[in-house]
Parts: sequence; structure tokens; C-alpha cells
Amino acid sequence: MNFASDNTSGASPHVLEAIVRANAGTLPSYGGDPHSVEAQRRLCEIFAAEPAIALVATGTAANALALASVVPPGGVVFCHEHAHINDEECAAPEFYTAAGKLVGVPGENGKIDPDALRTTLRRFPRGVVRQAQGACLSISQATESGTLYTLGELRELTGIAHENGLVVHMDGARFANAVASFGCTPAAMSHEVGIDVLSFGATKNGTLACEAILVFDKAAGAALPFRQKRGGHVLSKGRFLGSQMAAYLEEGHWLDLARHANAMAKRLADGLQLRNSVRLPWTRQVNEVFAILPHASIARLREAGAMFYDWDPDYLPVAQRPGPTETFVRLLCSFATEPAEIDRFLELERAAD
Amino acid sequence: MNFASDNTSGASPHVLEAIVRANAGTLPSYGGDPHSVEAQRRLCEIFAAEPAIALVATGTAANALALASVVPPGGVVFCHEHAHINDEECAAPEFYTAAGKLVGVPGENGKIDPDALRTTLRRFPRGVVRQAQGACLSISQATESGTLYTLGELRELTGIAHENGLVVHMDGARFANAVASFGCTPAAMSHEVGIDVLSFGATKNGTLACEAILVFDKAAGAALPFRQKRGGHVLSKGRFLGSQMAAYLEEGHWLDLARHANAMAKRLADGLQLRNSVRLPWTRQVNEVFAILPHASIARLREAGAMFYDWDPDYLPVAQRPGPTETFVRLLCSFATEPAEIDRFLELERAAD
Amino acid sequence: MNFASDNTSGASPHVLEAIVRANAGTLPSYGGDPHSVEAQRRLCEIFAAEPAIALVATGTAANALALASVVPPGGVVFCHEHAHINDEECAAPEFYTAAGKLVGVPGENGKIDPDALRTTLRRFPRGVVRQAQGACLSISQATESGTLYTLGELRELTGIAHENGLVVHMDGARFANAVASFGCTPAAMSHEVGIDVLSFGATKNGTLACEAILVFDKAAGAALPFRQKRGGHVLSKGRFLGSQMAAYLEEGHWLDLARHANAMAKRLADGLQLRNSVRLPWTRQVNEVFAILPHASIARLREAGAMFYDWDPDYLPVAQRPGPTETFVRLLCSFATEPAEIDRFLELERAAD
Amino acid sequence: MNFASDNTSGASPHVLEAIVRANAGTLPSYGGDPHSVEAQRRLCEIFAAEPAIALVATGTAANALALASVVPPGGVVFCHEHAHINDEECAAPEFYTAAGKLVGVPGENGKIDPDALRTTLRRFPRGVVRQAQGACLSISQATESGTLYTLGELRELTGIAHENGLVVHMDGARFANAVASFGCTPAAMSHEVGIDVLSFGATKNGTLACEAILVFDKAAGAALPFRQKRGGHVLSKGRFLGSQMAAYLEEGHWLDLARHANAMAKRLADGLQLRNSVRLPWTRQVNEVFAILPHASIARLREAGAMFYDWDPDYLPVAQRPGPTETFVRLLCSFATEPAEIDRFLELERAAD
Repeated sequence: MNFASDNTSGASPHVLEAIVRANAGTLPSYGGDPHSVEAQRRLCEIFAAEPAIALVATGTAANALALASVVPPGGVVFCHEHAHINDEECAAPEFYTAAGKLVGVPGENGKIDPDALRTTLRRFPRGVVRQAQGACLSISQATESGTLYTLGELRELTGIAHENGLVVHMDGARFANAVASFGCTPAAMSHEVGIDVLSFGATKNGTLACEAILVFDKAAGAALPFRQKRGGHVLSKGRFLGSQMAAYLEEGHWLDLARHANAMAKRLADGLQLRNSVRLPWTRQVNEVFAILPHASIARLREAGAMFYDWDPDYLPVAQRPGPTETFVRLLCSFATEPAEIDRFLELERAAD
Repeated sequence: MNFASDNTSGASPHVLEAIVRANAGTLPSYGGDPHSVEAQRRLCEIFAAEPAIALVATGTAANALALASVVPPGGVVFCHEHAHINDEECAAPEFYTAAGKLVGVPGENGKIDPDALRTTLRRFPRGVVRQAQGACLSISQATESGTLYTLGELRELTGIAHENGLVVHMDGARFANAVASFGCTPAAMSHEVGIDVLSFGATKNGTLACEAILVFDKAAGAALPFRQKRGGHVLSKGRFLGSQMAAYLEEGHWLDLARHANAMAKRLADGLQLRNSVRLPWTRQVNEVFAILPHASIARLREAGAMFYDWDPDYLPVAQRPGPTETFVRLLCSFATEPAEIDRFLELERAAD
Repeated sequence: MNFASDNTSGASPHVLEAIVRANAGTLPSYGGDPHSVEAQRRLCEIFAAEPAIALVATGTAANALALASVVPPGGVVFCHEHAHINDEECAAPEFYTAAGKLVGVPGENGKIDPDALRTTLRRFPRGVVRQAQGACLSISQATESGTLYTLGELRELTGIAHENGLVVHMDGARFANAVASFGCTPAAMSHEVGIDVLSFGATKNGTLACEAILVFDKAAGAALPFRQKRGGHVLSKGRFLGSQMAAYLEEGHWLDLARHANAMAKRLADGLQLRNSVRLPWTRQVNEVFAILPHASIARLREAGAMFYDWDPDYLPVAQRPGPTETFVRLLCSFATEPAEIDRFLELERAAD
Repeated sequence: MNFASDNTSGASPHVLEAIVRANAGTLPSYGGDPHSVEAQRRLCEIFAAEPAIALVATGTAANALALASVVPPGGVVFCHEHAHINDEECAAPEFYTAAGKLVGVPGENGKIDPDALRTTLRRFPRGVVRQAQGACLSISQATESGTLYTLGELRELTGIAHENGLVVHMDGARFANAVASFGCTPAAMSHEVGIDVLSFGATKNGTLACEAILVFDKAAGAALPFRQKRGGHVLSKGRFLGSQMAAYLEEGHWLDLARHANAMAKRLADGLQLRNSVRLPWTRQVNEVFAILPHASIARLREAGAMFYDWDPDYLPVAQRPGPTETFVRLLCSFATEPAEIDRFLELERAAD
């Protein structure tokens, strides 16, 4: 019953086997191996595009390098005020963008409000030397609240960004879960709605340590390999990254994993929703469930070994915040979560009454 | 017959098995897992010290983060003019040290000349505002020429550094090979001779993608985890790094691997040294052989599939450079190199006469 | 009738004469001249302290270098959400702090709210690697709203900061106006209430281009000269800076200038306050008047050549924002503002009825 | 008899008067004043070009911002191994270029050797991810040895640079002295021979604290104002910079000043050349004289109050270095040096026999 994060599991068996297979023999280093080449080929195929691509071992590196590819030194990145890049990455985006500035934009349900974005942009007028200049809009899909922008919402935001001379980055740490939830193509949720640069997450969804950066305008991504090396993110035994990504993308494996994680979260949310004493402030759309639970349930669950994090109630509108006998928690399901774990969790929660 | 690099092999079977075993089940993320804890314990034990430790996936990250731990923004790092950090890491050390400056010091056989170091230090007087201020001396052991500083030579260099207010970093990408060659303890070649911060390489010697940074003054390394995260170098599924390092250090495995690689290089160097038409400009001490070979041999070997790199003849004193019908090459052996490969290489070389 | 800024005037005649006098003859460069030495002596005397001191030509340099002196690479600077360092300096603080992060804290009347500060600090827990670590609290005195923290309020904020391991910076671009308003000593408004580093503004108050940075813990400021040089902020003909600051501090000249500017603003505020059609949302305390004026007045004044900036109504609580026929403006007085200008302004404003 | 530097004098009387005149009244801030506009107009006129222009207060800022305009983060700047940007600016170029790397190229007489440049460039191949990528060639005219590249030599170097995809920067700290020496047009020594970006020095030649940056491709310089602000180099009372540069360029004043300084240095060099006991290792071409003098002369001169710096003998070929009873010194003349000072110096030197 580990619902702490989708990174508390290891790699999917299919991915692990690929790593093992790729370990044999001598191969060119620094990404020249056939596994890395195959990974790139599959990414192009799946996205129906010819982007500049880099494989890296962490999501923070993916986001920071993706942003650095499109943000000039000291440029401004607009993002949701609770975006992972703003709150959880120890100022890595600032570091990689040569001291860029992250500016938070408010919005309910973890989603950037278009009007709030327009208002914020007016505070950074073009050509006024006192103000750092806007460079990028970063959108998280799924959001930090486990919600999803519709394709129309994405198009609206990228439209505002492009009108204002910004490039658009998507933090797709849970891109697979979002695509699985929509049933759309990867292209439809990225370059077709105006995403210029994508952090294509995979570690949370079944690789051991592998993410991809896709810069859809290949020429714009020309410096990506050098930035990657300068950040210390080019693995000498590149086969490790290549084999993971190639296996992850093989025959829809990545979507199978995501569909499973989403389904587990749905099972959990459905179960909790039946309870009068439990509230789910945000609609579950991917593999994350945010819930306000009675203290009694929390105690019972943790006593039984269930693992999950308390979440910051300030992220909720005042009216929805937990009462004095409640706690706001995040429950994450992964490709490895089993139905029995969900059922046991729900049973324990009910038993706390 | 792949002598191109010691990173063209995968992980040693023992290390790979440990990765596989560690993949099962849920574990705390970001280095809180028992494998990472065990890796740290073994590093402390082997070095007979209590350093601040970080595990990272690349050697460039290890060097750059190690330097950043001890170099203030814009500080000067003195190193051999052909040091890997100066020549081969795409300015990652400059990036991580907040625009530090690398200053090359000459010296034969890939080793910093103590007198040249003293002369160079005089060009960077303390307290003169026009000059960037010296912060660090970085020593590669083994060197880029495959040679070794004696412990006495290390002590001389660290002495000069400390007298001049510098901390001392060791780029130990091939630390294991050096220790295996000397038969000394890890402590004797690091903190006991005045090394303050060590990049403890492992990837070239049998891990898949894992290196350690050791800051021997633990307090001085307090910011290391934050710098690591800020660089995007904290793996969420930390078990991947921890399991590799723990297995690598288990029951002397790391030294077994290094001894093998060294022995293979010895076999190769010994064979080449019997040949009148071949010259070895630098004495072989670890797993690298640098040789000047006749064009005919080169052609024959490559035709037969042998892989190795041409090396820059400018690194040699003028008198030792290759003649018009010779080429300077680097030949690297790894833990996976087999005696038969060496023998076949030597045979082919001889047959070119 | 130029109320656009306190930097639209040149230097005070006394300061200008000092520049002219200092121009004669040869003198040591890079701050070794007697004028710079005298400026440092006077700063020590006036502040009753022995800080590390640097003279620079711009306020942005003063703030950015002051922050860089106390913020490690990537550290967090907490400041009011509308602080000059956050809003008006083109990300110079981020640049100089090696990609530090500025985090805005709300508060009415331009002043950081202590509770909001405590709440914000909780979002950046110590030792949690995902979060950039807090390094500094920056307080503007006077604020961007022309208001003043009382000495007690300053002590409360610096107390919170120090408890949380932060050093405290004061952006004293209008430090002189604040001291003149309070009638306190410079020490009482800086190191005695817990300010660790001060940007001591002078350009807005009568120098041509000269500010001072004071790091009250002299040892902590040891690297200041090198950071200054690295930023390109050491003037070769240092006499230009030294002569300005020495003259500015001579016989209370700096306070005479500030008292005059404050008195002019008072005359203006007093006049406006008599008018029913005008609102002053923030109490005037230094040389800045913020007023909501009817469109008719605005038009009349600008037609007559009065110069001043519209101000962002979003900085006001919703209830206080200008109505559809009003505009929010900022009116700045300087050492050079003449009573007749104020009277003419008031007369024109009244005549718009 | 101050020959220590050309920055030990103040401003020329003509420049000082302009500063005084410009001080009166209110004017737009941040460079919007008529003096700054006129300065820009004159720079365009004198260079027969429409560059992007910035005025700054220091030479270090001029060089660092000029380089930052054309060097992407982490790019390599090639320059003479003893270039001011490499040796005397406290790593400011590295700071402003977001951790760029300066690579020294050898060459006699302070001039980059074209063959050495070609050799060095081969060490930084395009597209090889291990190597930082070349971005810029920086040429000092006049050099740190007081020598001049001929226009042909400049064209050769810029040709090599452009063929290799580098932009070319000229550090023109003594540009005026060089133009005065050649009698050519400013255009002929800059954009017409392939210079892309120029640091146009003025402080050493008669302003108090003002230099210009010219990016000849105006579009390429679009970000210059933002970089300038981000560095803290936009003066609020911009009239101070504008009035200096406008006066400096008025009716050839700048060239009059430079011709005088050059003539004084010629008088000094001519006098020294008559002496058997004195050697001038580098031909005097501008306002700098480098001489090897007997200890007796040095002692006599310093006793009489002459000021000048010892210079690093390692900058000379071994055969030309001072003997055991000699010292290598640098003697600088400025616009303010008087013939009587030269004559007195020569007399004292002769009297030491």
C-alpha cells in the first residue's frame, strides 16, 4: 500500500529486461549505440515529428534542459504558481536558464487561468529595460493537482503565449497518463496544440531512470546536446538510457502502464467517493487522487502500513480546506499498484468509522 | 577487440544482478532506499572516513559537482593543461562553479609539474582585485596519459595547494585502477595525502552509470545534496545508483575488476614493447596503453575490426612525436577485456610487418 | 514640474563641485585615491560601524552585489512581492546570486506582512532537497509605496529572518529620506535592528551616480571587491565615486537634501489632501506621494507640462482602486524640487474642477 | 611623473565641462536624455555605421557585455594568452557569458599568431559534444604589449574566425590611440576588417568613466540593453555617460587626446632608445612604452617620485628577458602627460649612470 509516489516502484519488468539484454558486449558510448538510435526513432514515430531529442536520467534535468533550450539568459518563464519547476526542483530551472526568472500564475485546479496569464504578462512589457523579458510559458500536463487541460484549453494558453512572443514548454512528467486518459495521440497533445518543447516523462511510469526532451523545431534544438553535456547529463554507457526508452515505447507498453495506473487511481477515487466522510477536491483524471480524510481514517491507514503524503491545504480554495479533524492527502498509483492494495486501503478507510 | 574506451562495455555481471535484484518492490525515492544507505556505508568503510557523499550517474557530473562544492563563484581551478575537466567536459566545471575559470598547468607525462604550478600561482596573487582568485587544485589520478602520481608527488602538490589557500580535488575517474596498481588503501591515495574532495569513478570500471563524490570535510559538503538536485542529478529511483555502488564495493569486487583491466593493459604493453617498430611514450601504469604504431599496423588492425582512437600527438614532447609513417593511438582495456583479444591484437600487429 | 522620478535631477551643486575638484592631477586608480578612502571613513563614522564597503555607480548594482555577498548560488531571497529587486531590475539579483530565486511575500502598504513571511518560509523547509534553500530576507526602506517600516516592525522581520537562518538585506535606495523622516541615526535603522547588509542609496538623493554597499560583518564581506570587479563595477578612475560619496556625507549634506525632498512631498500631499476629489491611498512618509486623481486634473496637469507616471492600480486593495474617471499616479520630489513647482501643481489641479 | 597607467588622470577639461553643463535641470533618466542621444548619433557618424550601442562606466563592463552579446552560454572565447579579458578582469567575461571559457592563444609581441589560432581551433572541433564550442575571437587593438595589428593582420585573423563560425570582438580599450597611430578611419579598423563587436574605450583617453559597446549588426545587439540592465550597468542619470561621450567625440577631441598621448610616448621611447643600457623589447606604437632598465635607473627614478609598474618578464621571449641587474617596466602616457615630465624622466634615467 505505497501511495507515496509513482517513483517508489522500480522499472517495469519489460523495461528491466531490456536493460539486462542491452548490457552485453561492447557498444559505442555517449549515445551512439543502437538502443539509443532506436529510442530516437520510436519517439519520432510516436510523435509523428522530427524533433531534436535528448535522453536524460531525471525529470528535473529534462525540465531544466528543455527550458534552457528556449530561454535566453535571464529570461522569464511563466508557469502555474504551484508548478513542479517552481516549487520542487531546487531552482534547477533558474540554474540551467542562466539565472532566468520563474513567475507563478494563479489558477484553480492546478491549471493556469488564461486571464491571470494575460494580467501577469502585462507586468512584463516588451522592450522595457527594467523588466526581465518573457521567454517561455511552461504548462504541466497532467498538472500538480492531477487534473488535465483539455486540448482546447491547451490551445488557448499556447495561443496567448505565442501572441506574446513566448515559446511553450510542457512538463509532461505524467504525459503518458494524460494521453491514456484522453485516448488522443501524443502529437494531438503536444505540437498540434502549440507545444514547442516537451519534457516527456517516463520514470514515473515504468522506466528506471529515463526521460526524453523533445524540441519540435529541430533547428532550435541544435545546442541541446552541448547543454546536456555541460550539465553532466550525457551518460557514457548510453545504452542504459536508450534501452529503457526503446522498451518503454515498444508496442504501446508505455500506454499499457499508464492505463493501469490510471485505472487503479479510478478504483481508489470511486471507492472514496462513496464515503460521506471523504471529499475529493479535484476531479481525478490520471493516476493521482487528492482526498480530504478524517483523522481517524488517516491513523488507521498509516498504522496498517499505508504510505502517502500530507498535502498543502493552502493549494485549495479556502472553502474547501480540511476542517479541524481532517487532513488533505495525496494518493498516487503506479504501473505496479495492484487492485488488492486499493481494496485493502478502501476497506481500512471504511473500518475507521 | 574494442580498445576505444573503458566505457564501451556494460556493467559487470555482479553489478547488473544487483540492479535487477534492487528493482523489486516499493522503496523510498531520492536516495532514502536501503541500497543507497548501504552504498554510503561501504564508501565510509573503504575510505576509513566520514565524508559527505553523493551518488551520480556520470563522471562529468561527479567532477563538476565536486568542484562546485569547494569553489566559490568565479574562483580559479588549476589543473593539468590536458585535464579531462579542462578539455573533455564541455565547460561543465565552469557551469557548475558559477563561471569559474580553469587554468591549465603544464607538465610531462600528463602530470602537473610542481614548479610550473608555483609559477602559475604567482600569476594569481591573493587580494589583487584584477585577478580571479585561486580556489582549487584538481589532480587526475590516473592521469589522462595513463600515468600515476606517486604518493610523494601527490603530497608535494597538495602541500603547495594548501600553502596557497587552495582546496584539492582529485578526478578519480580511474581511481580503482590506480589503487589496484599501487596496492595501497583508498585512504592512502586520497585524504591521507591531502585530497579534500574526490570524484570516485566507477562507471569506467564496471558500474552501468554510477560515480560517487566524497567531500572529506563533511561540514564543507553540507550543500552537496542541494547542488546535486539543482543540477538535476538526484535520481528519483535512487535504488538504481545505490545498488550499483553497493555491489561494486562488495568484497573487493571493484579492485578485482580494476586488477583485471590493468593486467590486460600490461599484457598488451608487454607485447608491444617487444616490437622494434612500436614506441610507448608513456609508461603503462593502469589500464591505458599509449602507443606509436606504424601505419601498416594500424591499417591491418582496423581492417580486422580492432577499435581504438587516434590520440593528439601535440600531447607528446616534440622529440617523441610520431614520424610521417606512424600514428599515435590510445588503447584502453576494461574489466571485460579478454586475454584472447589482446593476443589477437598483438598477432595482427606483428603480422603487418 | 517634473515629478516623474527623483533621478531626473542631476547631482546637487555641492556634489558636483566635489567631482570637479577631484578631477585635477594624477591619483591612484581602482579606489586607492584619497577621495574613496575619505568616503569609506565617513560611512564608518556615520554608521558607527566597520563594515566592508563598496562604492558603485548604480542602485541595481548595489542591490545585486549586496545580495550576492550573502546568498549562496541558487539561494532564495524573500522580499515584498512588489519589491524593486523583484519587479524593476531585469533579474539582476538572480544573475548576481548565481541563479538565486526571488520569492515575493504579500503585505499591505508595500510592507512585508510578518505572518505572510512566516507562511512563505514554511514552503521552503530546511534540508528538503526538492526546495531551494532560503538565504536572505530583503526589506526596502522606504518601501516601493513610499511608506516606512517602524523600527519595531524592522526588528520583528529581522527576528523572523534570523530565527530561520536568513541574513537580512535592506534596499535603502531612499535610506536618507527614511532617516530624515524618523530623525533617527543611520545605525538605529540598520545594524541595530538586525540589518546585515545595506544598499545605501545616494543617486536619487543628490549624487550623480554613486551608491554604497555596506556588509556590517566585515569578514562576511571579504569577497565583495572581487564580486564587484567581476561584475565590471570597479571604476578605474575611482575618484569619481569617492568624491561624490565624501561630499554627499559632508556635514550632514545628505540629510539636508533628504529633508528638503521630504518637505516638498509633504507640501504636495498636504495640498492634495485638502481636496475632496483626490485620494492618497498610502500615507506619505518620505519624498513620494501616491494619489488617485480625477481624469480632468490629470489632463490639465500634463497639458501644463507636469511630468509623472501612472502607477499600477493592482498594487492597491480592490476597495481602494481608482474609479472609471480616476487615475492612480506617483509623484516624486527630489532635493531639487522647488516649492513653487508644488504650488503651481496644486493650483493647476484645483483649477481642473 | 606618473606613468603608472593612463587611468591615473581625471577627465580632460573639455569632457569635465560637458559633465558640469549637463548637470543642470531635469532630464529623462536611463539614457533617454539628449546627451545620450547625441552620443549615439556621433558614434554612428564616426563609425559610418548603425550599430546597437550601449554606454557603460567601465572597460570591464564594456568587454564583458560585448562578449555576452555574441557568446551563447558556455561558449568559447579565443584570445591572446595575455589578453586583458583573460588576465586582468577577474573572470568578468566568464560571468557575463554564462560560464563561457576563455582559451589563450600564444603569439609574439602581444599579437595572436594566426597559425597558433588555427592549431587551437582544431582542439575545439564543431559538433563534438565533449568540447565546449567556439563562439568568439577577441582581438585587442592596441595589444597588451602596446603593439598594433596591421589592418592586413586584422583581416587575416577575422577571416580565420569567420571561416570557423566565430564572431569577432575587438577590445578597443586604446582604440583611439591605435586609430591616431594609423591615421585611418574608425570604420577601417573595425567593421571594414571584419570586427563584429567593439569595446570602444574612452576612459583611458580622457573621459571620467565612459566606454561604448558597438554591435555592428544591430539586430544581433537587440538584447544588449537588457544585458546591460541585468548587469547593473544602466545609469539612472544617463546624462553623465551621454555628456562624456558626446564631448569626447566632439570635433575630433578624442583623436587630439590620443595623438598627444602617443606623441608623449614617442618622445619617451625615442629618448630611451638613445641609451645603450636600455632595451625596448616591443616597438612603441601607441601610448605605452615597455623598457628594460638597469636597477640603478629604476632606483633613481622612483626615488625622484616617478611612478610606473614592473612588468612580467615571462611575457618576453627567453632571450629578451632582463638580466640580473635589470628590470622590465611599463611606462604609460596619457592625454595629460606633459613634455617636461618626459624630459625629466629621461634626464633622471641618464643621470643614473
